[in-house]
Amino acid sequence: MIKLTHVQAKQLCNQVLVKAGYSDIHAQAIEEVLMQAQLDDCHSHGLYRLLNCVTSLKKGKVSADLLPIVHDISASVLKVDAQNAMAPLAIQTAIPQLVEKANTQGIALLALNNCVHTTALWYEVELLVNAGLVGLVCTSNHAWVVPEGGCIPLFGTNPMAFGWPRPHGENPFIFDFSTTAMARGDIELHRKNGQTLPDGCGVDAQGQPTNDPEVILDAGAMKTFGAHKGSALAAMIELLAGPLIGDVLSIESQKIDAGAGGSPLGGEFILAISPEKLLGSQSQYYLNSAEQLFKGYEEQQIRMPSARRYKARAENLASGSININEIVYQDLLEYLRT
Amino acid sequence: MIKLTHVQAKQLCNQVLVKAGYSDIHAQAIEEVLMQAQLDDCHSHGLYRLLNCVTSLKKGKVSADLLPIVHDISASVLKVDAQNAMAPLAIQTAIPQLVEKANTQGIALLALNNCVHTTALWYEVELLVNAGLVGLVCTSNHAWVVPEGGCIPLFGTNPMAFGWPRPHGENPFIFDFSTTAMARGDIELHRKNGQTLPDGCGVDAQGQPTNDPEVILDAGAMKTFGAHKGSALAAMIELLAGPLIGDVLSIESQKIDAGAGGSPLGGEFILAISPEKLLGSQSQYYLNSAEQLFKGYEEQQIRMPSARRYKARAENLASGSININEIVYQDLLEYLRT
Repeated sequence: MIKLTHVQAKQLCNQVLVKAGYSDIHAQAIEEVLMQAQLDDCHSHGLYRLLNCVTSLKKGKVSADLLPIVHDISASVLKVDAQNAMAPLAIQTAIPQLVEKANTQGIALLALNNCVHTTALWYEVELLVNAGLVGLVCTSNHAWVVPEGGCIPLFGTNPMAFGWPRPHGENPFIFDFSTTAMARGDIELHRKNGQTLPDGCGVDAQGQPTNDPEVILDAGAMKTFGAHKGSALAAMIELLAGPLIGDVLSIESQKIDAGAGGSPLGGEFILAISPEKLLGSQSQYYLNSAEQLFKGYEEQQIRMPSARRYKARAENLASGSININEIVYQDLLEYLRT
Repeated sequence: MIKLTHVQAKQLCNQVLVKAGYSDIHAQAIEEVLMQAQLDDCHSHGLYRLLNCVTSLKKGKVSADLLPIVHDISASVLKVDAQNAMAPLAIQTAIPQLVEKANTQGIALLALNNCVHTTALWYEVELLVNAGLVGLVCTSNHAWVVPEGGCIPLFGTNPMAFGWPRPHGENPFIFDFSTTAMARGDIELHRKNGQTLPDGCGVDAQGQPTNDPEVILDAGAMKTFGAHKGSALAAMIELLAGPLIGDVLSIESQKIDAGAGGSPLGGEFILAISPEKLLGSQSQYYLNSAEQLFKGYEEQQIRMPSARRYKARAENLASGSININEIVYQDLLEYLRT
């Protein structure tokens, strides 16, 4: 790991994205999201993704400049067509309108269509939570994952994220997990290092359990976490972030990609709920009441979801620097030189 | 198992509930829900629950006759105070209004407060799906479950259910599962039969893994399914079905019960989304598109969630009878005789 100042890291982002061909406004939106991940030491979702952004554009899998189109469906529903561009600009454009709808109606849904997912879902959840809202977000991607008991992949890694605002300046309660037993990147890392996997990560082409990362990635498929319950959740996410909002299933996204290895193109389901609108003058009472749950975590010294991120963020804000993998950094400099 | 005709079974329900002291309208609402479960061979959620209904009333833990009060919060949100009565009447009263809101706004939330949960969540999900809506429902109960890595229980068994309407008369895609590794009733059955449990079901008072059902039920606690991911989901359900809608956490519900062993009193989070409102003229296209996912299940011969229920329902509708455990039946007759 090496350290860059925030200014240096932002400049690096901007230079790479602009050289790749992204319009200024998209470059700025993507930079904002990747920098937030890097600030939280989420290395796999930070500046490491810049080269994905370059590749996706080169392969013609993403628009460099089209702007999101917002459709107002009702007092509680917003549909945003990202026009095959990267997700961040669509998210940053639409979230303020979603917040307004949630504040007025108590609940609101943002259906984000035709976007290329760039990074982690906790980013958009945190935007909602910072506005005092509860957020629930999910998305699908490419069909890499079998339903429990199966051998034909139907699901993406299908992450979901949830956030809850805390009343006294504590970091919000936010979790963000994929519905797979192991992250795809971790399985790839096992292959790279010649390691076998623990039980339950995937199956071979016949649906039989295997601990070989090579078999899972090449001929077989990944498994969901939590057996048939995790499998049911993954199916739910396929439906919510796909057909319900007028977008694709993971099996369709994969067909569209047609082996190009581009970033998945598809939908995102973003739900926002306002405790204040639901509870009126009692909302502070109930937000305080929820704190009993979090005190229960502290009491038995259990790490809350996102605690590691918040710790890294505090350190990196205090130092004015971010940590970046040296190989990633050199790759980015190399891209800028050539 | 013995068989009763539908008419006999309904009469039995009605006689027990009226003898216990429930008002006619509550007795009818509860009967409707328990009969539906019995029709689907869901024995643990069917007529077996009648004696729970009797006990809860005897212990003063539930209202026999208070009617649900509906508060209209916004165009998309309904809050219903069940006034400590059993849930079915509140659900049957409010669902038609929820359906109307979802149809108009695209998304709508029903916050159900101060109710005693009687049976499975798939019942209310199916009401929504039958109206052409997507449904997502969850509830908490008593704090029997530790967060991953912990020894102090914070969560209820926290079930969630999800439903998706299918366009050509197929049975809807509905799942309904608790967020625990094993159902509480199954752990009790293991204790009764002197059997040890598989790994991962629970912990002792120090948070150490145990396979002894006695230890888990008396001094220890249950575990969630899916390690830290299942644990995060259970926490989300605590917040959604509790403080977010102005209701209790499982740790509070347990305090209120104060060892009486009554049915849990609390909230239920019921979300309804209209594909038709979200997608307009494209809704049929996308409902058909979702069928690709279900075809993927069939193609590899994986049983869909609820398939067993639907099969039982078809058989029991054709025969005009339901199956009931003979001991449960004798217990109910005994109650009516004394």
